[in-house]
Amino acid sequence: MILLDGKNIASQIKIEIADRVLEIDRSGGKMPHLAAVIVGNDGASETYVAHKVRACKEVGFKSTLVRLDEQVAEEILLEKIDEINNNPDIDGMIVQLPLPPHISEGKVIERIKVEKDVDGFHPVNVGRMFIGQPAYISATPYGIIQLIERYNIETSGKHCVIIGRSNIVGKPMAALMSRKGYPGDCTVTICHSRTRNLDDICRRADILVAALGSAGFVNAEMVKEGAVVIDVGITRTRSAETRSGWKLLGDVKFDEVAPKCSYITPVPGGVGPMTIVSLLANTLKASAREVYG
Amino acid sequence: MILLDGKNIASQIKIEIADRVLEIDRSGGKMPHLAAVIVGNDGASETYVAHKVRACKEVGFKSTLVRLDEQVAEEILLEKIDEINNNPDIDGMIVQLPLPPHISEGKVIERIKVEKDVDGFHPVNVGRMFIGQPAYISATPYGIIQLIERYNIETSGKHCVIIGRSNIVGKPMAALMSRKGYPGDCTVTICHSRTRNLDDICRRADILVAALGSAGFVNAEMVKEGAVVIDVGITRTRSAETRSGWKLLGDVKFDEVAPKCSYITPVPGGVGPMTIVSLLANTLKASAREVYG
Repeated sequence: MILLDGKNIASQIKIEIADRVLEIDRSGGKMPHLAAVIVGNDGASETYVAHKVRACKEVGFKSTLVRLDEQVAEEILLEKIDEINNNPDIDGMIVQLPLPPHISEGKVIERIKVEKDVDGFHPVNVGRMFIGQPAYISATPYGIIQLIERYNIETSGKHCVIIGRSNIVGKPMAALMSRKGYPGDCTVTICHSRTRNLDDICRRADILVAALGSAGFVNAEMVKEGAVVIDVGITRTRSAETRSGWKLLGDVKFDEVAPKCSYITPVPGGVGPMTIVSLLANTLKASAREVYG
Repeated sequence: MILLDGKNIASQIKIEIADRVLEIDRSGGKMPHLAAVIVGNDGASETYVAHKVRACKEVGFKSTLVRLDEQVAEEILLEKIDEINNNPDIDGMIVQLPLPPHISEGKVIERIKVEKDVDGFHPVNVGRMFIGQPAYISATPYGIIQLIERYNIETSGKHCVIIGRSNIVGKPMAALMSRKGYPGDCTVTICHSRTRNLDDICRRADILVAALGSAGFVNAEMVKEGAVVIDVGITRTRSAETRSGWKLLGDVKFDEVAPKCSYITPVPGGVGPMTIVSLLANTLKASAREVYG
Protein backbone atom coordinates (compact mmCIF):
# COMPACT_ATOMS: atom_id res chain seq x y z
CA MET A 1 0.00 0.00 0.00
CA ILE A 2 1.35 3.40 -0.99
CA LEU A 3 0.18 6.52 0.79
CA LEU A 4 -0.83 9.36 -1.53
CA ASP A 5 1.02 12.00 0.43
CA GLY A 6 -0.77 15.20 -0.50
CA LYS A 7 1.11 17.19 2.08
CA ASN A 8 4.44 16.28 0.57
CA ILE A 9 3.32 16.71 -3.05
CA ALA A 10 1.74 20.06 -2.20
CA SER A 11 5.07 21.22 -0.73
CA GLN A 12 6.90 20.13 -3.87
CA ILE A 13 4.45 21.97 -6.10
CA LYS A 14 4.76 25.08 -3.96
CA ILE A 15 8.52 24.99 -4.42
CA GLU A 16 8.08 24.63 -8.18
CA ILE A 17 5.70 27.59 -8.23
CA ALA A 18 8.05 29.67 -6.07
CA ASP A 19 10.85 28.87 -8.55
CA ARG A 20 8.68 30.07 -11.43
CA VAL A 21 7.96 33.27 -9.51
CA LEU A 22 11.69 33.82 -8.99
CA GLU A 23 12.28 33.41 -12.73
CA ILE A 24 9.50 35.89 -13.49
CA ASP A 25 11.06 38.31 -11.04
CA ARG A 26 14.54 37.86 -12.51
CA SER A 27 13.26 38.49 -16.02
CA GLY A 28 11.51 41.66 -14.83
CA GLY A 29 8.02 40.26 -15.22
CA LYS A 30 4.93 41.14 -13.23
CA MET A 31 4.34 39.15 -10.03
CA PRO A 32 1.24 36.90 -10.08
CA HIS A 33 -1.46 38.62 -8.05
CA LEU A 34 -4.51 37.05 -6.42
CA ALA A 35 -7.40 39.04 -4.97
CA ALA A 36 -9.60 37.40 -2.34
CA VAL A 37 -12.97 38.87 -1.43
CA ILE A 38 -14.56 37.96 1.86
CA VAL A 39 -18.01 39.06 2.99
CA GLY A 40 -18.81 39.01 6.68
CA ASN A 41 -16.92 37.36 9.52
CA ASP A 42 -17.69 33.66 9.31
CA GLY A 43 -14.96 31.83 11.24
CA ALA A 44 -14.41 29.03 8.74
CA SER A 45 -14.32 31.48 5.80
CA GLU A 46 -11.79 33.65 7.65
CA THR A 47 -9.57 30.62 8.19
CA TYR A 48 -9.77 29.48 4.57
CA VAL A 49 -9.03 32.94 3.20
CA ALA A 50 -6.16 33.41 5.66
CA HIS A 51 -4.64 30.11 4.45
CA LYS A 52 -4.95 31.20 0.83
CA VAL A 53 -3.34 34.57 1.48
CA ARG A 54 -0.53 32.92 3.44
CA ALA A 55 0.04 30.41 0.63
CA CYS A 56 0.37 33.33 -1.81
CA LYS A 57 3.06 34.87 0.39
CA GLU A 58 4.92 31.57 0.64
CA VAL A 59 5.34 31.30 -3.13
CA GLY A 60 5.97 35.02 -3.68
CA PHE A 61 2.59 36.00 -5.17
CA LYS A 62 1.12 39.38 -4.49
CA SER A 63 -2.27 39.16 -2.79
CA THR A 64 -5.04 41.60 -2.00
CA LEU A 65 -7.66 40.89 0.61
CA VAL A 66 -10.93 42.74 0.21
CA ARG A 67 -13.22 42.70 3.24
CA LEU A 68 -16.86 43.63 2.95
CA ASP A 69 -19.43 43.88 5.69
CA GLU A 70 -21.92 41.02 6.22
CA GLN A 71 -24.70 43.49 5.35
CA VAL A 72 -23.11 44.78 2.15
CA ALA A 73 -25.54 45.32 -0.73
CA GLU A 74 -25.21 42.88 -3.61
CA GLU A 75 -24.67 45.80 -5.97
CA ILE A 76 -21.65 47.01 -3.98
CA LEU A 77 -20.11 43.54 -4.09
CA LEU A 78 -20.71 43.38 -7.84
CA GLU A 79 -19.07 46.78 -8.29
CA LYS A 80 -16.09 45.58 -6.30
CA ILE A 81 -15.83 42.58 -8.60
CA ASP A 82 -15.95 44.88 -11.64
CA GLU A 83 -13.16 46.94 -10.14
CA ILE A 84 -11.00 43.84 -9.70
CA ASN A 85 -11.99 42.63 -13.19
CA ASN A 86 -10.70 45.90 -14.58
CA ASN A 87 -7.54 46.07 -12.52
CA PRO A 88 -4.76 44.95 -14.88
CA ASP A 89 -2.41 44.13 -12.01
CA ILE A 90 -4.72 41.46 -10.60
CA ASP A 91 -4.55 38.10 -12.40
CA GLY A 92 -6.95 35.99 -10.41
CA MET A 93 -9.85 36.54 -8.05
CA ILE A 94 -11.79 34.43 -5.59
CA VAL A 95 -14.92 35.33 -3.70
CA GLN A 96 -15.06 33.18 -0.60
CA LEU A 97 -18.28 31.17 -0.38
CA PRO A 98 -20.82 30.88 1.13
CA LEU A 99 -22.20 34.40 0.80
CA PRO A 100 -24.90 35.87 3.05
CA PRO A 101 -28.40 34.81 1.96
CA HIS A 102 -29.33 38.25 0.56
CA ILE A 103 -26.65 37.92 -2.13
CA SER A 104 -27.03 35.68 -5.17
CA GLU A 105 -23.98 33.42 -5.46
CA GLY A 106 -24.84 32.67 -9.07
CA LYS A 107 -24.90 36.34 -9.98
CA VAL A 108 -21.63 37.00 -8.16
CA ILE A 109 -19.83 34.07 -9.78
CA GLU A 110 -21.04 35.00 -13.26
CA ARG A 111 -19.81 38.57 -12.73
CA ILE A 112 -16.20 37.46 -12.31
CA LYS A 113 -14.27 37.76 -15.56
CA VAL A 114 -13.74 34.19 -16.78
CA GLU A 115 -10.04 34.96 -17.34
CA LYS A 116 -9.67 35.77 -13.63
CA ASP A 117 -11.95 33.02 -12.28
CA VAL A 118 -9.19 30.93 -10.69
CA ASP A 119 -11.73 29.10 -8.52
CA GLY A 120 -13.16 27.68 -11.76
CA PHE A 121 -16.75 28.17 -10.63
CA HIS A 122 -17.92 30.42 -13.50
CA PRO A 123 -20.22 28.49 -15.87
CA VAL A 124 -17.85 29.24 -18.76
CA ASN A 125 -15.01 27.47 -16.96
CA VAL A 126 -17.29 24.64 -15.83
CA GLY A 127 -18.67 24.27 -19.37
CA ARG A 128 -15.23 24.38 -20.99
CA MET A 129 -13.89 21.79 -18.57
CA PHE A 130 -16.93 19.63 -19.37
CA ILE A 131 -16.44 19.76 -23.12
CA GLY A 132 -12.67 19.37 -22.84
CA GLN A 133 -11.55 22.89 -23.73
CA PRO A 134 -8.89 24.81 -21.80
CA ALA A 135 -10.37 26.00 -18.50
CA TYR A 136 -9.62 26.65 -14.87
CA ILE A 137 -10.47 23.49 -12.98
CA SER A 138 -11.70 24.08 -9.48
CA ALA A 139 -9.32 23.44 -6.62
CA THR A 140 -10.43 20.09 -5.19
CA PRO A 141 -10.79 18.15 -8.46
CA TYR A 142 -7.65 19.78 -9.83
CA GLY A 143 -5.79 18.78 -6.67
CA ILE A 144 -6.92 15.16 -7.01
CA ILE A 145 -5.94 15.09 -10.68
CA GLN A 146 -2.46 16.40 -9.84
CA LEU A 147 -2.08 13.80 -7.09
CA ILE A 148 -2.95 11.01 -9.55
CA GLU A 149 -0.48 12.47 -12.06
CA ARG A 150 2.38 12.84 -9.60
CA TYR A 151 2.07 9.20 -8.55
CA ASN A 152 1.68 8.06 -12.17
CA ILE A 153 -1.45 6.12 -11.32
CA GLU A 154 -2.80 4.32 -14.37
CA THR A 155 -6.32 5.43 -15.27
CA SER A 156 -7.01 4.38 -18.88
CA GLY A 157 -9.75 1.73 -19.02
CA LYS A 158 -10.05 1.63 -15.24
CA HIS A 159 -13.44 1.72 -13.58
CA CYS A 160 -13.66 4.83 -11.44
CA VAL A 161 -16.56 4.96 -9.00
CA ILE A 162 -17.41 8.33 -7.46
CA ILE A 163 -19.62 8.61 -4.40
CA GLY A 164 -21.22 12.04 -4.29
CA ARG A 165 -22.58 14.35 -6.97
CA SER A 166 -21.70 17.79 -5.65
CA ASN A 167 -20.92 20.58 -8.10
CA ILE A 168 -17.51 21.13 -6.57
CA VAL A 169 -16.24 17.54 -6.35
CA GLY A 170 -18.37 14.64 -7.59
CA LYS A 171 -19.61 16.05 -10.88
CA PRO A 172 -16.32 17.57 -12.07
CA MET A 173 -14.41 14.43 -11.02
CA ALA A 174 -16.79 12.36 -13.15
CA ALA A 175 -16.20 14.67 -16.10
CA LEU A 176 -12.43 14.69 -15.66
CA MET A 177 -11.94 10.98 -15.11
CA SER A 178 -14.07 10.06 -18.14
CA ARG A 179 -12.52 12.48 -20.60
CA LYS A 180 -9.93 11.55 -23.19
CA GLY A 181 -6.27 11.54 -22.21
CA TYR A 182 -4.38 11.22 -18.97
CA PRO A 183 -5.54 11.32 -16.23
CA GLY A 184 -8.83 10.14 -17.69
CA ASP A 185 -10.16 7.51 -20.07
CA CYS A 186 -11.86 5.81 -17.13
CA THR A 187 -15.24 4.16 -17.25
CA VAL A 188 -16.94 6.32 -14.63
CA THR A 189 -19.88 5.53 -12.37
CA ILE A 190 -21.35 8.37 -10.34
CA CYS A 191 -23.27 7.34 -7.21
CA HIS A 192 -25.31 9.31 -4.70
CA SER A 193 -28.04 9.10 -2.08
CA ARG A 194 -30.47 7.45 -4.52
CA THR A 195 -28.04 4.76 -5.64
CA ARG A 196 -29.07 1.17 -4.99
CA ASN A 197 -26.54 -1.61 -4.30
CA LEU A 198 -23.85 0.95 -3.58
CA ASP A 199 -21.61 -1.62 -1.87
CA ASP A 200 -21.65 -3.84 -4.96
CA ILE A 201 -20.84 -0.93 -7.24
CA CYS A 202 -17.98 0.25 -5.03
CA ARG A 203 -16.48 -3.24 -4.97
CA ARG A 204 -16.11 -3.04 -8.75
CA ALA A 205 -14.05 0.16 -8.55
CA ASP A 206 -10.42 0.21 -9.58
CA ILE A 207 -10.40 3.82 -8.42
CA LEU A 208 -12.83 4.85 -5.69
CA VAL A 209 -13.44 8.53 -4.95
CA ALA A 210 -15.38 9.12 -1.73
CA ALA A 211 -16.84 12.62 -1.67
CA LEU A 212 -20.10 12.40 0.22
CA GLY A 213 -19.04 14.02 3.49
CA SER A 214 -20.02 11.22 5.85
CA ALA A 215 -17.28 10.19 8.27
CA GLY A 216 -16.14 6.58 7.92
CA PHE A 217 -18.82 5.71 5.36
CA VAL A 218 -16.58 3.49 3.22
CA ASN A 219 -15.55 0.27 4.95
CA ALA A 220 -13.26 -2.58 3.90
CA GLU A 221 -16.18 -4.63 2.59
CA MET A 222 -16.83 -2.00 -0.07
CA VAL A 223 -13.31 -1.93 -1.48
CA LYS A 224 -11.72 -4.30 -3.99
CA GLU A 225 -8.27 -5.70 -3.27
CA GLY A 226 -5.72 -3.44 -5.00
CA ALA A 227 -8.02 -0.46 -5.48
CA VAL A 228 -6.90 3.18 -5.46
CA VAL A 229 -8.91 5.07 -2.83
CA ILE A 230 -9.23 8.86 -2.82
CA ASP A 231 -10.87 10.25 0.29
CA VAL A 232 -12.26 13.75 -0.17
CA GLY A 233 -14.31 13.85 3.04
CA ILE A 234 -13.35 16.07 5.95
CA THR A 235 -15.60 15.87 8.98
CA ARG A 236 -14.50 17.67 12.12
CA THR A 237 -15.39 15.69 15.25
CA ARG A 238 -14.71 15.94 18.96
CA SER A 239 -11.81 13.82 20.09
CA ALA A 240 -10.15 13.04 23.41
CA GLU A 241 -7.03 11.88 21.55
CA THR A 242 -5.85 15.24 20.26
CA ARG A 243 -4.60 18.29 22.08
CA SER A 244 -7.02 20.55 20.23
CA GLY A 245 -9.95 18.37 21.26
CA TRP A 246 -10.87 17.98 17.57
CA LYS A 247 -10.09 15.40 14.95
CA LEU A 248 -10.58 15.41 11.16
CA LEU A 249 -12.24 12.30 9.78
CA GLY A 250 -12.45 11.23 6.16
CA ASP A 251 -15.26 9.39 4.38
CA VAL A 252 -13.16 6.21 4.47
CA LYS A 253 -12.40 3.95 7.47
CA PHE A 254 -8.70 4.30 6.83
CA ASP A 255 -7.43 1.62 9.21
CA GLU A 256 -9.46 -1.20 7.75
CA VAL A 257 -9.46 -0.02 4.11
CA ALA A 258 -5.79 0.91 3.70
CA PRO A 259 -4.41 -2.67 3.84
CA LYS A 260 -6.52 -3.61 0.78
CA CYS A 261 -5.43 -0.63 -1.34
CA SER A 262 -2.69 -0.13 -3.88
CA TYR A 263 -2.85 3.62 -3.10
CA ILE A 264 -4.86 5.60 -0.58
CA THR A 265 -5.04 9.22 0.58
CA PRO A 266 -4.87 9.87 4.33
CA VAL A 267 -7.12 12.42 6.07
CA PRO A 268 -5.71 14.88 6.93
CA GLY A 269 -2.71 15.21 4.62
CA GLY A 270 -4.21 13.77 1.44
CA VAL A 271 -6.54 15.76 -0.79
CA GLY A 272 -6.77 18.74 1.59
CA PRO A 273 -3.28 20.22 1.11
CA MET A 274 -3.64 19.82 -2.68
CA THR A 275 -6.56 22.22 -2.92
CA ILE A 276 -4.79 25.44 -1.95
CA VAL A 277 -1.86 24.51 -4.15
CA SER A 278 -4.30 24.13 -7.05
CA LEU A 279 -5.54 27.66 -6.48
CA LEU A 280 -1.93 28.85 -6.67
CA ALA A 281 -1.38 26.84 -9.85
CA ASN A 282 -4.48 28.42 -11.41
CA THR A 283 -3.33 31.89 -10.41
CA LEU A 284 0.04 31.24 -12.02
CA LYS A 285 -1.76 30.09 -15.19
CA ALA A 286 -3.87 33.25 -15.10
CA SER A 287 -0.76 35.38 -14.76
CA ALA A 288 0.84 33.57 -17.72
CA ARG A 289 -2.41 33.81 -19.78
CA GLU A 290 -2.17 30.05 -20.25
CA VAL A 291 -5.87 29.24 -20.37
CA TYR A 292 -7.40 32.16 -22.26
CA GLY A 293 -4.36 33.41 -24.17
CA MET B 1 -42.49 -3.94 -24.96
CA ILE B 2 -43.58 -0.37 -25.50
CA LEU B 3 -42.24 1.61 -28.43
CA LEU B 4 -40.97 5.09 -27.51
CA ASP B 5 -42.68 6.78 -30.42
CA GLY B 6 -40.65 9.93 -30.92
CA LYS B 7 -42.44 10.78 -34.12
CA ASN B 8 -45.81 10.84 -32.39
CA ILE B 9 -44.59 12.67 -29.28
CA ALA B 10 -42.81 15.21 -31.45
CA SER B 11 -46.07 15.88 -33.32
CA GLN B 12 -47.91 16.35 -30.02
CA ILE B 13 -45.30 18.78 -28.75
CA LYS B 14 -45.45 20.72 -32.01
CA ILE B 15 -49.20 21.08 -31.60
CA GLU B 16 -48.69 22.31 -28.03
CA ILE B 17 -46.12 24.84 -29.21
CA ALA B 18 -48.37 25.98 -32.07
CA ASP B 19 -51.16 26.50 -29.51
CA ARG B 20 -48.87 28.66 -27.39
CA VAL B 21 -47.96 30.68 -30.47
CA LEU B 22 -51.66 31.22 -31.22
CA GLU B 23 -52.19 32.47 -27.67
CA ILE B 24 -49.25 34.84 -28.00
CA ASP B 25 -50.69 36.11 -31.25
CA ARG B 26 -54.15 36.59 -29.77
CA SER B 27 -52.76 38.55 -26.85
CA GLY B 28 -50.83 40.77 -29.24
CA GLY B 29 -47.41 39.41 -28.27
CA LYS B 30 -44.32 39.14 -30.41
CA MET B 31 -43.94 35.95 -32.45
CA PRO B 32 -41.00 33.72 -31.43
CA HIS B 33 -38.24 34.21 -33.96
CA LEU B 34 -35.34 31.89 -34.75
CA ALA B 35 -32.34 32.87 -36.87
CA ALA B 36 -30.32 30.12 -38.54
CA VAL B 37 -26.89 30.83 -39.96
CA ILE B 38 -25.43 28.50 -42.56
CA VAL B 39 -21.95 28.79 -43.99
CA GLY B 40 -21.22 27.10 -47.32
CA ASN B 41 -23.30 24.55 -49.21
CA ASP B 42 -22.76 21.26 -47.45
CA GLY B 43 -25.64 18.98 -48.44
CA ALA B 44 -26.34 17.55 -44.99
CA SER B 45 -26.18 20.99 -43.37
CA GLU B 46 -28.59 22.36 -45.99
CA THR B 47 -31.03 19.55 -45.21
CA TYR B 48 -30.84 20.05 -41.44
CA VAL B 49 -31.34 23.78 -41.67
CA ALA B 50 -34.21 23.38 -44.13
CA HIS B 51 -35.90 21.02 -41.64
CA LYS B 52 -35.44 23.51 -38.83
CA VAL B 53 -36.84 26.40 -40.86
CA ARG B 54 -39.79 24.27 -41.97
CA ALA B 55 -40.47 23.23 -38.36
CA CYS B 56 -40.56 26.93 -37.39
CA LYS B 57 -43.17 27.58 -40.07
CA GLU B 58 -45.26 24.64 -38.90
CA VAL B 59 -45.62 26.01 -35.38
CA GLY B 60 -45.99 29.65 -36.46
CA PHE B 61 -42.52 30.92 -35.50
CA LYS B 62 -40.84 33.58 -37.54
CA SER B 63 -37.51 32.43 -38.95
CA THR B 64 -34.60 34.09 -40.67
CA LEU B 65 -32.09 32.16 -42.71
CA VAL B 66 -28.69 33.78 -43.09
CA ARG B 67 -26.48 32.30 -45.81
CA LEU B 68 -22.78 32.99 -45.90
CA ASP B 69 -20.26 31.89 -48.44
CA GLU B 70 -17.98 28.91 -47.71
CA GLN B 71 -15.03 31.32 -47.94
CA VAL B 72 -16.46 33.93 -45.58
CA ALA B 73 -13.92 35.46 -43.20
CA GLU B 74 -14.35 34.50 -39.55
CA GLU B 75 -14.64 38.17 -38.66
CA ILE B 76 -17.62 38.64 -41.00
CA LEU B 77 -19.40 35.67 -39.45
CA LEU B 78 -18.72 37.06 -35.97
CA GLU B 79 -20.12 40.45 -37.03
CA LYS B 80 -23.21 38.72 -38.37
CA ILE B 81 -23.63 37.01 -35.00
CA ASP B 82 -23.28 40.36 -33.21
CA GLU B 83 -25.95 41.78 -35.49
CA ILE B 84 -28.34 38.95 -34.58
CA ASN B 85 -27.35 39.26 -30.91
CA ASN B 86 -28.39 42.89 -31.04
CA ASN B 87 -31.58 42.41 -33.00
CA PRO B 88 -34.37 42.59 -30.42
CA ASP B 89 -36.83 40.81 -32.69
CA ILE B 90 -34.73 37.63 -32.82
CA ASP B 91 -35.11 35.36 -29.77
CA GLY B 92 -32.89 32.45 -30.66
CA MET B 93 -30.00 31.73 -33.00
CA ILE B 94 -28.27 28.66 -34.30
CA VAL B 95 -25.12 28.45 -36.37
CA GLN B 96 -25.21 25.19 -38.28
CA LEU B 97 -22.14 23.05 -37.60
CA PRO B 98 -19.65 21.96 -38.83
CA LEU B 99 -18.05 25.20 -40.00
CA PRO B 100 -15.28 25.39 -42.63
CA PRO B 101 -11.85 24.65 -41.17
CA HIS B 102 -10.64 28.28 -41.34
CA ILE B 103 -13.29 29.29 -38.80
CA SER B 104 -12.99 28.53 -35.07
CA GLU B 105 -16.18 26.82 -33.90
CA GLY B 106 -15.31 27.61 -30.28
CA LYS B 107 -14.96 31.32 -31.03
CA VAL B 108 -18.23 31.37 -32.98
CA ILE B 109 -20.18 29.54 -30.29
CA GLU B 110 -18.84 31.77 -27.52
CA ARG B 111 -19.83 34.84 -29.52
CA ILE B 112 -23.52 33.92 -29.47
CA LYS B 113 -25.36 35.70 -26.68
CA VAL B 114 -26.11 33.04 -24.07
CA GLU B 115 -29.72 34.23 -23.91
CA LYS B 116 -30.12 33.41 -27.62
CA ASP B 117 -28.07 30.20 -27.66
CA VAL B 118 -31.00 27.84 -28.23
CA ASP B 119 -28.63 25.08 -29.40
CA GLY B 120 -27.23 25.08 -25.85
CA PHE B 121 -23.63 24.79 -27.06
CA HIS B 122 -22.24 27.95 -25.38
CA PRO B 123 -20.05 27.04 -22.38
CA VAL B 124 -22.31 29.11 -20.13
CA ASN B 125 -25.29 26.95 -21.04
CA VAL B 126 -23.24 23.76 -20.83
CA GLY B 127 -21.83 24.81 -17.46
CA ARG B 128 -25.21 25.85 -16.08
CA MET B 129 -26.77 22.58 -17.18
CA PHE B 130 -23.89 20.75 -15.50
CA ILE B 131 -24.30 22.50 -12.16
CA GLY B 132 -28.10 22.29 -12.30
CA GLN B 133 -28.94 25.93 -13.01
CA PRO B 134 -31.51 27.04 -15.60
CA ALA B 135 -29.99 26.61 -19.08
CA TYR B 136 -30.78 25.72 -22.65
CA ILE B 137 -30.18 21.99 -23.00
CA SER B 138 -28.98 20.97 -26.43
CA ALA B 139 -31.45 19.34 -28.75
CA THR B 140 -30.61 15.64 -28.61
CA PRO B 141 -30.31 15.24 -24.83
CA TYR B 142 -33.29 17.51 -24.31
CA GLY B 143 -35.29 15.41 -26.78
CA ILE B 144 -34.41 12.21 -24.92
CA ILE B 145 -35.31 13.76 -21.58
CA GLN B 146 -38.69 14.83 -22.94
CA LEU B 147 -39.33 11.36 -24.34
CA ILE B 148 -38.62 9.82 -20.93
CA GLU B 149 -40.93 12.37 -19.29
CA ARG B 150 -43.80 11.87 -21.71
CA TYR B 151 -43.75 8.12 -21.12
CA ASN B 152 -43.39 8.59 -17.36
CA ILE B 153 -40.43 6.26 -17.27
CA GLU B 154 -39.15 5.82 -13.72
CA THR B 155 -35.56 6.96 -13.34
CA SER B 156 -34.87 7.47 -9.61
CA GLY B 157 -32.33 4.97 -8.32
CA LYS B 158 -32.09 3.25 -11.70
CA HIS B 159 -28.73 2.39 -13.19
CA CYS B 160 -28.32 4.28 -16.45
CA VAL B 161 -25.47 3.16 -18.68
CA ILE B 162 -24.42 5.48 -21.48
CA ILE B 163 -22.24 4.28 -24.34
CA GLY B 164 -20.40 7.22 -25.87
CA ARG B 165 -18.83 10.33 -24.39
CA SER B 166 -19.50 12.95 -27.06
CA ASN B 167 -20.03 16.55 -26.04
CA ILE B 168 -23.42 16.64 -27.71
CA VAL B 169 -24.95 13.41 -26.40
CA GLY B 170 -23.01 11.15 -24.03
CA LYS B 171 -21.62 13.73 -21.62
CA PRO B 172 -24.77 15.85 -21.25
CA MET B 173 -26.91 12.72 -20.89
CA ALA B 174 -24.65 11.57 -18.04
CA ALA B 175 -25.03 14.95 -16.35
CA LEU B 176 -28.80 15.06 -16.82
CA MET B 177 -29.54 11.50 -15.75
CA SER B 178 -27.45 11.81 -12.59
CA ARG B 179 -28.77 15.16 -11.41
CA LYS B 180 -31.38 15.58 -8.71
CA GLY B 181 -35.03 15.43 -9.65
CA TYR B 182 -37.02 13.89 -12.47
CA PRO B 183 -35.90 12.74 -14.96
CA GLY B 184 -32.67 12.05 -13.12
CA ASP B 185 -31.50 10.59 -9.82
CA CYS B 186 -29.96 7.69 -11.74
CA THR B 187 -26.71 6.02 -10.88
CA VAL B 188 -24.91 6.72 -14.14
CA THR B 189 -22.06 4.86 -15.81
CA ILE B 190 -20.43 6.44 -18.82
CA CYS B 191 -18.63 4.06 -21.19
CA HIS B 192 -16.50 4.64 -24.27
CA SER B 193 -13.83 3.14 -26.50
CA ARG B 194 -11.49 2.52 -23.56
CA THR B 195 -14.08 0.73 -21.45
CA ARG B 196 -13.32 -2.86 -20.49
CA ASN B 197 -16.05 -5.49 -19.98
CA LEU B 198 -18.55 -3.30 -21.77
CA ASP B 199 -21.01 -6.18 -22.25
CA ASP B 200 -21.08 -6.86 -18.51
CA ILE B 201 -21.63 -3.22 -17.70
CA CYS B 202 -24.44 -2.89 -20.25
CA ARG B 203 -26.19 -5.96 -18.85
CA ARG B 204 -26.49 -4.15 -15.51
CA ALA B 205 -28.30 -1.19 -17.07
CA ASP B 206 -31.92 -0.46 -16.21
CA ILE B 207 -31.69 2.31 -18.80
CA LEU B 208 -29.24 1.92 -21.67
CA VAL B 209 -28.39 4.88 -23.88
CA ALA B 210 -26.48 3.92 -27.03
CA ALA B 211 -24.77 6.95 -28.54
CA LEU B 212 -21.57 5.72 -30.11
CA GLY B 213 -22.57 5.89 -33.77
CA SER B 214 -21.83 2.28 -34.70
CA ALA B 215 -24.68 0.52 -36.51
CA GLY B 216 -26.06 -2.51 -34.68
CA PHE B 217 -23.40 -2.40 -31.96
CA VAL B 218 -25.75 -3.33 -29.11
CA ASN B 219 -27.05 -6.90 -29.32
CA ALA B 220 -29.51 -8.88 -27.22
CA GLU B 221 -26.72 -10.37 -25.10
CA MET B 222 -25.85 -6.92 -23.80
CA VAL B 223 -29.33 -6.03 -22.61
CA LYS B 224 -31.03 -6.98 -19.36
CA GLU B 225 -34.58 -8.30 -19.46
CA GLY B 226 -36.94 -5.36 -18.89
CA ALA B 227 -34.42 -2.61 -19.69
CA VAL B 228 -35.27 0.74 -21.25
CA VAL B 229 -33.19 1.19 -24.41
CA ILE B 230 -32.61 4.58 -26.01
CA ASP B 231 -30.95 4.40 -29.40
CA VAL B 232 -29.29 7.67 -30.44
CA GLY B 233 -27.30 6.26 -33.35
CA ILE B 234 -28.14 7.11 -36.94
CA THR B 235 -25.98 5.49 -39.58
CA ARG B 236 -26.99 5.87 -43.21
CA THR B 237 -26.31 2.71 -45.18
CA ARG B 238 -27.03 1.41 -48.66
CA SER B 239 -30.09 -0.77 -48.82
CA ALA B 240 -31.87 -2.76 -51.52
CA GLU B 241 -35.02 -2.80 -49.40
CA THR B 242 -35.95 0.86 -49.65
CA ARG B 243 -37.03 2.94 -52.61
CA SER B 244 -34.41 5.60 -51.86
CA GLY B 245 -31.67 2.97 -51.83
CA TRP B 246 -30.71 4.11 -48.31
CA LYS B 247 -31.61 2.94 -44.86
CA LEU B 248 -31.05 4.49 -41.42
CA LEU B 249 -29.60 2.16 -38.83
CA GLY B 250 -29.39 2.69 -35.10
CA ASP B 251 -26.69 1.59 -32.67
CA VAL B 252 -29.01 -1.17 -31.44
CA LYS B 253 -29.97 -4.42 -33.20
CA PHE B 254 -33.63 -3.58 -32.82
CA ASP B 255 -35.12 -6.91 -33.88
CA GLU B 256 -33.27 -8.99 -31.32
CA VAL B 257 -33.12 -6.39 -28.53
CA ALA B 258 -36.71 -5.11 -28.60
CA PRO B 259 -38.34 -8.31 -27.23
CA LYS B 260 -36.25 -8.00 -24.03
CA CYS B 261 -37.10 -4.34 -23.39
CA SER B 262 -39.75 -2.62 -21.34
CA TYR B 263 -39.33 0.43 -23.62
CA ILE B 264 -37.25 1.01 -26.73
CA THR B 265 -36.83 3.76 -29.30
CA PRO B 266 -37.03 2.77 -32.97
CA VAL B 267 -34.62 4.18 -35.59
CA PRO B 268 -35.88 6.14 -37.43
CA GLY B 269 -38.82 7.65 -35.53
CA GLY B 270 -37.38 7.58 -32.01
CA VAL B 271 -34.86 10.14 -30.81
CA GLY B 272 -34.47 11.81 -34.22
CA PRO B 273 -37.84 13.59 -34.45
CA MET B 274 -37.45 14.80 -30.85
CA THR B 275 -34.37 16.87 -31.61
CA ILE B 276 -35.94 19.49 -33.88
CA VAL B 277 -38.87 19.80 -31.53
CA SER B 278 -36.42 20.51 -28.71
CA LEU B 279 -34.94 23.36 -30.70
CA LEU B 280 -38.45 24.77 -31.08
CA ALA B 281 -39.08 24.34 -27.36
CA ASN B 282 -35.85 26.21 -26.57
CA THR B 283 -36.77 29.01 -28.96
CA LEU B 284 -40.16 29.33 -27.28
CA LYS B 285 -38.38 29.50 -23.89
CA ALA B 286 -36.05 32.18 -25.29
CA SER B 287 -39.01 34.18 -26.54
CA ALA B 288 -40.68 33.90 -23.11
CA ARG B 289 -37.37 34.78 -21.31
CA GLU B 290 -37.85 31.59 -19.28
CA VAL B 291 -34.21 30.65 -18.80
CA TYR B 292 -32.46 33.98 -18.31
CA GLY B 293 -35.35 36.16 -17.14
